[in-house]
Amino acid sequence: MPPPALRWRDDADAGPAVVLLDQTRLPTAEVELVCTTPAQLVEAIQTLAVRGAPLLGIAGGYGVALAAARGLDLTAAARELARARPTAVNLATGVARVLAAATTSGEPGVALAEARALHAEEDAASAGMAAHGLTLVPDGARILTHCNTGALAVGGTGSAFAVVLAAHHAGRLTRLWIDETRPLLQGARLTAWEAAGHGVPYTVLPDCAAPVLMAAGQVDLVVVGADRIAADGSVANKIGTYGLAVAAAHHRIPFVVVAPRTTVDPTTPDGAAIVIEQRAASEVTTLAGRQLAPAGSAAFNPAFDVTPPGLITALVTEVGVLHSPTADSLSDLLGR
Amino acid sequence: MPPPALRWRDDADAGPAVVLLDQTRLPTAEVELVCTTPAQLVEAIQTLAVRGAPLLGIAGGYGVALAAARGLDLTAAARELARARPTAVNLATGVARVLAAATTSGEPGVALAEARALHAEEDAASAGMAAHGLTLVPDGARILTHCNTGALAVGGTGSAFAVVLAAHHAGRLTRLWIDETRPLLQGARLTAWEAAGHGVPYTVLPDCAAPVLMAAGQVDLVVVGADRIAADGSVANKIGTYGLAVAAAHHRIPFVVVAPRTTVDPTTPDGAAIVIEQRAASEVTTLAGRQLAPAGSAAFNPAFDVTPPGLITALVTEVGVLHSPTADSLSDLLGR
Repeated sequence: MPPPALRWRDDADAGPAVVLLDQTRLPTAEVELVCTTPAQLVEAIQTLAVRGAPLLGIAGGYGVALAAARGLDLTAAARELARARPTAVNLATGVARVLAAATTSGEPGVALAEARALHAEEDAASAGMAAHGLTLVPDGARILTHCNTGALAVGGTGSAFAVVLAAHHAGRLTRLWIDETRPLLQGARLTAWEAAGHGVPYTVLPDCAAPVLMAAGQVDLVVVGADRIAADGSVANKIGTYGLAVAAAHHRIPFVVVAPRTTVDPTTPDGAAIVIEQRAASEVTTLAGRQLAPAGSAAFNPAFDVTPPGLITALVTEVGVLHSPTADSLSDLLGR
Repeated sequence: MPPPALRWRDDADAGPAVVLLDQTRLPTAEVELVCTTPAQLVEAIQTLAVRGAPLLGIAGGYGVALAAARGLDLTAAARELARARPTAVNLATGVARVLAAATTSGEPGVALAEARALHAEEDAASAGMAAHGLTLVPDGARILTHCNTGALAVGGTGSAFAVVLAAHHAGRLTRLWIDETRPLLQGARLTAWEAAGHGVPYTVLPDCAAPVLMAAGQVDLVVVGADRIAADGSVANKIGTYGLAVAAAHHRIPFVVVAPRTTVDPTTPDGAAIVIEQRAASEVTTLAGRQLAPAGSAAFNPAFDVTPPGLITALVTEVGVLHSPTADSLSDLLGR
């Protein structure tokens, strides 16, 4: 078992703390980062020592609890935490939820209880996704995944990765193919590390090699996460997801998206309405200070892409499986 | 104009030499590597200071000429040169051709003349591919390419890259999209460097982002090279080519292969008969000594993939364009 990505600790000497596994040091070192103040947690969020939208929500919640336990100004701490990564909606939501509970009650232990409740809900959602997703995994499955969707990004054992792990524990997984996931290599760095920690048989590959595995009959199922799902079923997820979906459709391989219901955003009507963040060229043209392309090269570096619902075989959430999701079935899902 | 990838030099002080642009130093430094002996050239080939199948053929030819000019044992030099990279057929062919000419004649200048003739033929083939390929390029074209197919790999200005350059000089090129081409990054390192040197407007992208550009209507044409073409029209080329072809077909974008006729191998009946070299996991899991995935991770790292003829819109050679190549039309092509 790999060490937890995030935990609350309250020991007699050091007092209350949020203890993170420093993700910037993975996969070569497992280093704990102990945050005893909200300011330290803000820095950890900004340096990506902790990342992944749902995990940031949990981190933000514990950050408010930390401020409460230390007797700090809750509103000021919450503001700094929520601002640490402004585009992470879950972070702001988690912070606001724990702040509201603490403010309403005034009892010192309420903030921590609410943060723990949020954490437990995310864990339960992960378990639900794992159980429902497992129903789509055949015996002896070779599963291909992209980016990082495990415990380093999501509560519990993750979203798509939770399905992989459930398949492994059920004895149904023959091989996990892990796209390295350029440019930031979350697959090679983080998913491979999680797979290794759980004893999952895995193989890393350059993203562009995935269609070759499909053509060779070496992939039974593709599972990916989602950053946002529009009302029409379009899925925004890590760059590279769309190309995988196109290739999976060409080879008639099931393409499965695994995400909690909170990922569905009914206020975003369709894929065209999803604004895609363009990131710095240097993420593509340099690595660890080494110049990979000529200095000054332009780079196309969108953080996400959008996969239309027609390419999605199924959407797995904590409450069940939607086959060939549509605007109507998604609307029903949110109404349950 | 970028400096030449390879040239023959015979100056009064240093004597005859093959002067290479050291490709291992690109894109950050342009360093000449002067080989005054065949042994130095063998080392340059082995360390990938010079690479690219057709360019290795030219290098091998000059290597034999160098042995002749230095009065060395031609047969021994030819054997060492041909062995420097055993899987590079062009290298062995170029070496054998110049050795045969030198051995038959016995005149000291014959080896160099034959090497120059080989070089000139490769230059002419490149010019032919450029001219024929240009007929497929619309005005204002946004062209996407993969790997390196320019002067650093092929005679003249290359194969697929020669078409790009012809389009640029004809004022038809709006943008060259360059796949970085993991794992060895020949696109980011070498093609981007060549594009910059010729003033071609270019943008580098992670390989997995190419389908997004296609979906956004930002790609008018895909051009790639080929390492070997089977008798049925299946194309072996750098890993990632097949996925691009699948994505191009999905988006109804022309997918064009540019290669000299010598790339067609009538003794290989079809794609299944092409043996694909699997390369070391470390090419994927490490970069410049930095561990990208957990130590000991397995990696799927084929050097090439195979694109079936049904996904190929056109094959451009030095003698013309084959639309939707078939076994029959390829057979005709070789018979011309």
